[in-house]
Amino acid sequence: MAENKNILTGDRPTGPLHLGHFVGSLANRVKLQDTHKQYVMIADMQALTDHADEPELIKSSVLEVALDYLSIGIDPKKTVIFIQSLIPAISELTMYYLNLVTWNRLKHNPTVKVEIRQKGFKDQVPAGFMIYPISQAADITAFKAKYVPVGDDQIPMIEQTVEIVRKFNRTYNTSALVEPETISPAIARLPGIDGQAKMSKTLNNAIYLSDPKEVVEKKVKKMYTDPNHLRIEDPGKVEGNPVFTYLDAFDPDKEKLQSMKDHYQRGGLGDMVVKKRLLEVLEKFLSPIRKKRKEYEKDKTAVLQMLKKGTDQANLVANQTLKEVKQAMGIVY
Amino acid sequence: MAENKNILTGDRPTGPLHLGHFVGSLANRVKLQDTHKQYVMIADMQALTDHADEPELIKSSVLEVALDYLSIGIDPKKTVIFIQSLIPAISELTMYYLNLVTWNRLKHNPTVKVEIRQKGFKDQVPAGFMIYPISQAADITAFKAKYVPVGDDQIPMIEQTVEIVRKFNRTYNTSALVEPETISPAIARLPGIDGQAKMSKTLNNAIYLSDPKEVVEKKVKKMYTDPNHLRIEDPGKVEGNPVFTYLDAFDPDKEKLQSMKDHYQRGGLGDMVVKKRLLEVLEKFLSPIRKKRKEYEKDKTAVLQMLKKGTDQANLVANQTLKEVKQAMGIVY
Repeated sequence: MAENKNILTGDRPTGPLHLGHFVGSLANRVKLQDTHKQYVMIADMQALTDHADEPELIKSSVLEVALDYLSIGIDPKKTVIFIQSLIPAISELTMYYLNLVTWNRLKHNPTVKVEIRQKGFKDQVPAGFMIYPISQAADITAFKAKYVPVGDDQIPMIEQTVEIVRKFNRTYNTSALVEPETISPAIARLPGIDGQAKMSKTLNNAIYLSDPKEVVEKKVKKMYTDPNHLRIEDPGKVEGNPVFTYLDAFDPDKEKLQSMKDHYQRGGLGDMVVKKRLLEVLEKFLSPIRKKRKEYEKDKTAVLQMLKKGTDQANLVANQTLKEVKQAMGIVY
Repeated sequence: MAENKNILTGDRPTGPLHLGHFVGSLANRVKLQDTHKQYVMIADMQALTDHADEPELIKSSVLEVALDYLSIGIDPKKTVIFIQSLIPAISELTMYYLNLVTWNRLKHNPTVKVEIRQKGFKDQVPAGFMIYPISQAADITAFKAKYVPVGDDQIPMIEQTVEIVRKFNRTYNTSALVEPETISPAIARLPGIDGQAKMSKTLNNAIYLSDPKEVVEKKVKKMYTDPNHLRIEDPGKVEGNPVFTYLDAFDPDKEKLQSMKDHYQRGGLGDMVVKKRLLEVLEKFLSPIRKKRKEYEKDKTAVLQMLKKGTDQANLVANQTLKEVKQAMGIVY
């Protein structure tokens, strides 16, 4: 049997993707598709767990996300891109795994606990949200994923999947399910333009991959820098200064960047100059993406067809896993 | 549009069906199949929620239950008999409904609370068990069931379904889902042969529809009666005496039964005589069922084919509902 190099990854379609997504995962996917069997899921069902009353946002975002993928170079010839809600086996696997996890265990999932606080659910947590670690185990195992690229905050989710895999394989005396491992992207997280730790749509501090030039300009201009760098001649801080963090992520000219950092720290280099450089760098990065996006936007039917094809391929794999799962359980009629 | 007379009902395949099932639901189904569109589900997925480590029991019981159905006169030409795990739409609908119910609401479902105590789960309640009211809502709504025959203890489950239907239809501005009503069988419950309120496999106090004559004889002989009816000449109690409850349910000669009751209450009628009459009555009831069962057992492939056909019919209906549900949510690609 060939070595299992399956990867499962994806995004919740609740808006367009931004630079944080690129740095945190998309860039990695473009590399990994050459060395691994990569499945990229547009997780519309998972998005519904905390957006049940905004299905129209989710639907429109599915296409946006697909366009983002194609524009940044995820290649449907190498990567299987699919829509979660069109894979019934994921729902079915979830139903079986639900019986292998206790209610108490779910309550104590650290990632879910943090997210419940962040989302302000209070005592109105949707049941679908509480059980999403289990449906995520279904996503991962459906594709026999060996590798799951996640940030540190998502590690407990993968641990939950590993627990389910072990319990399933032990209970039904099988090796049908594969234990996944996490792989961490190089730069885990890009701060927001407001300096907050995470770039996110909810925090309204993101630069989107599909933002037009004028919008990027406006956003970069109002970016948070070192609040104590009041006059140009003052020494400025580079650490925790998102303008420099972005440059670290996107500026290919590391030498020039280092000399700018030195200058900024010595004093005498104004924020406007650094921001101008960042804009230049971002434009160089974003303009070919925008151009490719325009091309794909012209023929949305072709994009939908690409998604359909990926979904068909994904269904083949997930249905095979479901079949093995049912065989292991012995509930085949 | 024709009046909706859809019924959804069924059983968890965790063993053969007994007289309690017959009185509580099966007898009713034989009648209802002439006046309603009846869907009878063999709920193997639901059985797994508290029997995750006994899939072989569930698998073998699926066939047993189907044989019981056919033997007592549920007619696959009139009733759609199907296997739950072969209807993917039920799992998919469950996933969407999970987002419309809060975790707190699930915790407070009275039926689930009682069952958790009865089953002795303590702090090891499987998540699948906690959410089974939601998957039951998926069962019911998948078939647009207007009527669900349930005992009093299950009424909170139907209320939960009604809540989900209302929330779904309101949230997505649709009338795709149908609000079910409960219909209560005439005699809700048959006591066990030990006098306990409920006949059940777990309590080991059941007479099965497939029990051979000798087994029925043995069970009737050791049946609980009036514990204070020590000598034949003593007056005996009829209320709470399961032998008479069974006669009430199965003896077609009501006049004779009444005179036996009078005699028993006056004193002078021994338990053995009443039990002999019960055995006679039960044999008259069970022997044609046994005979039909033998016929069906000869050709199990035909029974499986009948199940397959019913499942195909059920999938048509459930997939149509899923389609409408997705359309209402707008997540159609």
